[in-house]
Amino acid sequence: MKNLAVLHAAQLVTLAGPARPRIGPEMNELGILLHGGLLVRDGVIVATGASDDIERTAPRDAEFVDAGERVVLPGFVDAHTHPVFAGDRVEEFEQRARGATYEEIAASGGGIRSTVRKTRAASEDELRQRALKHARWFLQCGTTTVEAKSGYGLSVEDELKMLRVVRDLNALTPLELVPTFLGAHAVPEEHAGSPARYVDLVINEMLPQVAAKNLAENCDIFCEQGYFNIEMSRSILNAAKARGLDLRLHADQLTNSGAAILAAELSARTADHLELTEDDGIAAMQRAKVQPVLLPGSVYALGKTRYPRARGMIGAGLAVVLATDFNPGSSPTPSIPMVLSLAATQMKMTPAEGVTAATINAAYSLRRGRKLGSLEAGKCANFAIFDCEDYREIACYFGIPQTHSVYVRGERVFPA
Amino acid sequence: MKNLAVLHAAQLVTLAGPARPRIGPEMNELGILLHGGLLVRDGVIVATGASDDIERTAPRDAEFVDAGERVVLPGFVDAHTHPVFAGDRVEEFEQRARGATYEEIAASGGGIRSTVRKTRAASEDELRQRALKHARWFLQCGTTTVEAKSGYGLSVEDELKMLRVVRDLNALTPLELVPTFLGAHAVPEEHAGSPARYVDLVINEMLPQVAAKNLAENCDIFCEQGYFNIEMSRSILNAAKARGLDLRLHADQLTNSGAAILAAELSARTADHLELTEDDGIAAMQRAKVQPVLLPGSVYALGKTRYPRARGMIGAGLAVVLATDFNPGSSPTPSIPMVLSLAATQMKMTPAEGVTAATINAAYSLRRGRKLGSLEAGKCANFAIFDCEDYREIACYFGIPQTHSVYVRGERVFPA
Repeated sequence: MKNLAVLHAAQLVTLAGPARPRIGPEMNELGILLHGGLLVRDGVIVATGASDDIERTAPRDAEFVDAGERVVLPGFVDAHTHPVFAGDRVEEFEQRARGATYEEIAASGGGIRSTVRKTRAASEDELRQRALKHARWFLQCGTTTVEAKSGYGLSVEDELKMLRVVRDLNALTPLELVPTFLGAHAVPEEHAGSPARYVDLVINEMLPQVAAKNLAENCDIFCEQGYFNIEMSRSILNAAKARGLDLRLHADQLTNSGAAILAAELSARTADHLELTEDDGIAAMQRAKVQPVLLPGSVYALGKTRYPRARGMIGAGLAVVLATDFNPGSSPTPSIPMVLSLAATQMKMTPAEGVTAATINAAYSLRRGRKLGSLEAGKCANFAIFDCEDYREIACYFGIPQTHSVYVRGERVFPA
Repeated sequence: MKNLAVLHAAQLVTLAGPARPRIGPEMNELGILLHGGLLVRDGVIVATGASDDIERTAPRDAEFVDAGERVVLPGFVDAHTHPVFAGDRVEEFEQRARGATYEEIAASGGGIRSTVRKTRAASEDELRQRALKHARWFLQCGTTTVEAKSGYGLSVEDELKMLRVVRDLNALTPLELVPTFLGAHAVPEEHAGSPARYVDLVINEMLPQVAAKNLAENCDIFCEQGYFNIEMSRSILNAAKARGLDLRLHADQLTNSGAAILAAELSARTADHLELTEDDGIAAMQRAKVQPVLLPGSVYALGKTRYPRARGMIGAGLAVVLATDFNPGSSPTPSIPMVLSLAATQMKMTPAEGVTAATINAAYSLRRGRKLGSLEAGKCANFAIFDCEDYREIACYFGIPQTHSVYVRGERVFPA
């Protein structure tokens, strides 16, 4: 039995509250304990309270962590990432700086397809080593759980390869990765003339193997003009649902294709992006309790100015989630603090709404709300200490994550 | 005599070139040495070249630094910062997230005036301690020189106090701070009814003491509606020039007030911000060789969308500089890598133009172009190693400075 007591938090941001995602004004309620502390046994939180009380009641053999009047938060849960890939896309980054659009680059063989070529060519070990670097970045930014998508393989073998890498990473890094099958991320070059055949491949070859080998908890799809239309998306997602996978969608990013409404029709767990979703999509998601996963990093990185309508979604009672969309092309940031800055400055979310969206709401979107996303008795002792006195500084000062240290199940994982 | 050899840089980004600021297409010429190395003697660069050559010719007693196939750049020069202040402005950050504008917050006693109240109340030691935290942030982001403004004192005693703090910091941190007197940052509350009297105070009491005590190299002013108009700015800057100070201006940030044209008239070294500067201002600056200092962090942080016209300025042959504008309110970032990201994604500057703007061009804007801003024989051995293989990754991956280590005059200063 190992006991750990965290003392002297200027703010212990607990997110304590009802055992469900937070909506509307609840998103501003962070359950902050001033001068707070935390007691952990065998990686699980057993108590939160005033630092003095925690110190007094801690077992004699407890190890003490002095938070030094800093801010303590639950580890961030990043509910939309693409952390496994080979190569980079700095050439395209420069092309965009020189004026090319994301769509133009994709049409000329760049974008997702460029990463697919490099990822197919890479060995599992190369992919693991590179992803381990990304895992260290996530931890350095205070993130302890990420949803991790495949989608740069786009063949049976390469999609399975990516999902095996995600599985293996869980043993190699303290970061928890939640696997999502995204075979329908793009139509690969060899099927460019016959997208329907590729949809068949996804449904009849990839999905059965992914499910049989238990390599994914979720199925995602890029429902977008030039990628997968509504009908194709519906077929793939229905097939995934039949195999017991939870559904997530890349929805309404580049055009308002009706994907948010499809997400509601299929009772998807999340619809992600939503830059162009209008009132009807928001209403449909509200009725079906689909959680929106907003990804302002990709709007920013693509030099666009239309951000998703976060205020409208919060106003409509949606349990909004924020995530990085970490990937080498359209959103090259692993930093939830950066996303909190974007949410506040570009989408007018309060810092508290941002924190709720990137912790407890994100945890529920991954079916981990009972275990992660808040600092409450019975939950995993995943937490991050930030070098500031007010949690709002994490969103205010941008470009430099103010992470002091990070713990997963009561063990310090950053600095390593 | 101490010798240091830096070996195995995947890219040694030298910025070698003519001994003057870079303009037009020159801004894309970084003088990159692949598999490069660097020889340093007593803190000064004595040679750059192929890593193998450097290794072979290094003195036997040289200390070796293995860059490990990472990218090596000159330390960034951040030519516009406000690093000395007390308190923070997270309340206003939240107000802006809730929809208030910067101008509304300033009109209700917030903004600069709020930081002035806290800075006046703080002791020199408190200000030094807080600024030392900011100095560590700058170094962590790869910045080794910052221009540092006063301007949160706004009384004779408090402006002198701030400039003494800047002077003392130079002895306390390896970061080099270049002092700028910004008494005319705002009209303080006690002079709100009589701005002309405050202008008198700046000219007849502050400036003589600042100059006599040799506490500043530059004089800056916030030339803006509601702050200091063109006539007031002209009087103050002429008085500063007469006392031997170089001139810099906060120009055309919130309105196009003609401040860029004033900068040209007075042969100011820089005009900063320039969000609203039009063709006539750009042409005037070109004729007078005024360097524009662009501060995209403040556009971003204030949630605005009109960035300065970087492409027009580069096209007109201006020697563009990029800086953070680090301050607690309108640009809370110490990160030049973040500014390079903003420059590429929001202002369509190439990563190379960004690097030039934040190194050699910035150094010239502070009269340090012969000593800083490039890796060439005879210059200070101030350099940063970034954990990537291509310098463009520094601008591409945002929210997390990829700094591996930082050296000032050949001594490692980060990690400390």
